[in-house]
Amino acid sequence: MKLVRYGESGAEKPGLLDADGAIRDLSGVVDDIAGDVLTDDGLAKLAAVDPASLPLVDGNPRFGPCVGQVGKFLAIGLNYVDHAAEVGAKLPEEPIVFSKAITCITGPNDTVEIPRGSVQSDWEVELGFVIGKKAKYVSEADAMDYVAGYCIVNDVSERDFQMRRSGQWLKGKSHDTFGPIGPWLVTKDEVADPHDLKMTCSVNGEIQQDGSTNTMHFKVPQIIAHLTQFMTLMPGDVIATGTPPGVGMGKNPPMFLKDGDVMELTVEGLGHQRQVCRSAE
Amino acid sequence: MKLVRYGESGAEKPGLLDADGAIRDLSGVVDDIAGDVLTDDGLAKLAAVDPASLPLVDGNPRFGPCVGQVGKFLAIGLNYVDHAAEVGAKLPEEPIVFSKAITCITGPNDTVEIPRGSVQSDWEVELGFVIGKKAKYVSEADAMDYVAGYCIVNDVSERDFQMRRSGQWLKGKSHDTFGPIGPWLVTKDEVADPHDLKMTCSVNGEIQQDGSTNTMHFKVPQIIAHLTQFMTLMPGDVIATGTPPGVGMGKNPPMFLKDGDVMELTVEGLGHQRQVCRSAE
Repeated sequence: MKLVRYGESGAEKPGLLDADGAIRDLSGVVDDIAGDVLTDDGLAKLAAVDPASLPLVDGNPRFGPCVGQVGKFLAIGLNYVDHAAEVGAKLPEEPIVFSKAITCITGPNDTVEIPRGSVQSDWEVELGFVIGKKAKYVSEADAMDYVAGYCIVNDVSERDFQMRRSGQWLKGKSHDTFGPIGPWLVTKDEVADPHDLKMTCSVNGEIQQDGSTNTMHFKVPQIIAHLTQFMTLMPGDVIATGTPPGVGMGKNPPMFLKDGDVMELTVEGLGHQRQVCRSAE
Repeated sequence: MKLVRYGESGAEKPGLLDADGAIRDLSGVVDDIAGDVLTDDGLAKLAAVDPASLPLVDGNPRFGPCVGQVGKFLAIGLNYVDHAAEVGAKLPEEPIVFSKAITCITGPNDTVEIPRGSVQSDWEVELGFVIGKKAKYVSEADAMDYVAGYCIVNDVSERDFQMRRSGQWLKGKSHDTFGPIGPWLVTKDEVADPHDLKMTCSVNGEIQQDGSTNTMHFKVPQIIAHLTQFMTLMPGDVIATGTPPGVGMGKNPPMFLKDGDVMELTVEGLGHQRQVCRSAE
């Protein structure tokens, strides 16, 4: 299934895409694409619904973030062999884990706000996965049982805030709108191999990132096994798995986002994002 | 007011302490001590209620975390002049900000779980403050308008996970039960000066930390002004402001928590916490 949340910000309704790619309204079936709806039982209930029986949604509503009520928004740093090389960093021995404030989550096509004082705002197309079951001390062998599905994440980052503002990356990763997720939460049964998906990010129509999840260093099961040694993951938690080469800080000379720039992102099978950048007032 | 959440974990009810220190049930007035209840209007509504008119709660129920539905749980590192000296660190030029997973939040007297493989679990008594109003780009001068109240936080930390597991502190700060908060959310009108509160932490009856918020380096308004340059704070977000000297890793020789140890924490006017440590199974 391709699950969506559509409508105005803060008042999104749950929906799914039918075979023709049209949105069908799920609000008679579930309240939100969130929490328990993402468990095996919750998803099985949705899968049992005939899309043709659901109201067709008119027009072209805004897509909201494809998951609601996210508890934790985590991300893995320097997780692509070729991206680590690009920024001159050694591959880490264990996954680098950081968090993004949940208030940065936004729809896939919403405006991205460049923070006041930003001179190094940057893009990062990433494969995101969404947790479907409470996960603590999970083994790699069992890890995929805990995944509900996948989505595109743009892990927008202010490099100066991230790197030079007293240590922890959180400061550069958390500005409002720095976490577009969606448009679709694609359930895992529709993604044959999450480690073989093409992914691109263009800025103003020019391709900047053109990679594949096949150069991901720590794979999804390793990430889950690692994270759940340190914290408990819950249904609806979103984890971004790192970015391939081509980020602005890796360019020579470096290149950063400015007011009016347009980012477009794709991950194979997960849809398309488009964000216009605007300076914060 | 001293607001509380009491009852079984996951099913806490809202309450307040009356003049005799007894719990009065607020569940007929509000659903939870969370979100909009923490705004000026929400707190004014509670303040208008005569405690004597509320049902008296029998017995000695468990205290839950004093805030529900926490969106962000942030903390400030190395924020006490004397603690920085103790661990041999330079005072940071800007607040060091890190996050704790919200799944680590627990009641003030609940068992603290020592993670598998932990050899350096440590205590940190801290003044926590709770946000009462959406806060973005807030000035120091206005910052106190955004505070709903204060509580004790034990920022339990696994030092090896924090320092030597690939960079970001999150890994050592987020284990389940590593965030006891409460017992009370004390509204700010009852705290004359948050920067002049005595605070202690004892382990197995022996005082380890004996400090005061008067050696806090970045004060509450500076922390709010700084954080809101990087992210938007929401009602119910909890921010721990750093710890005074006396943590286990600062001892000579270092001293860490083990199964059966008992921590007891106080911050002047904010109550008392007591946690027994148990090894994770």
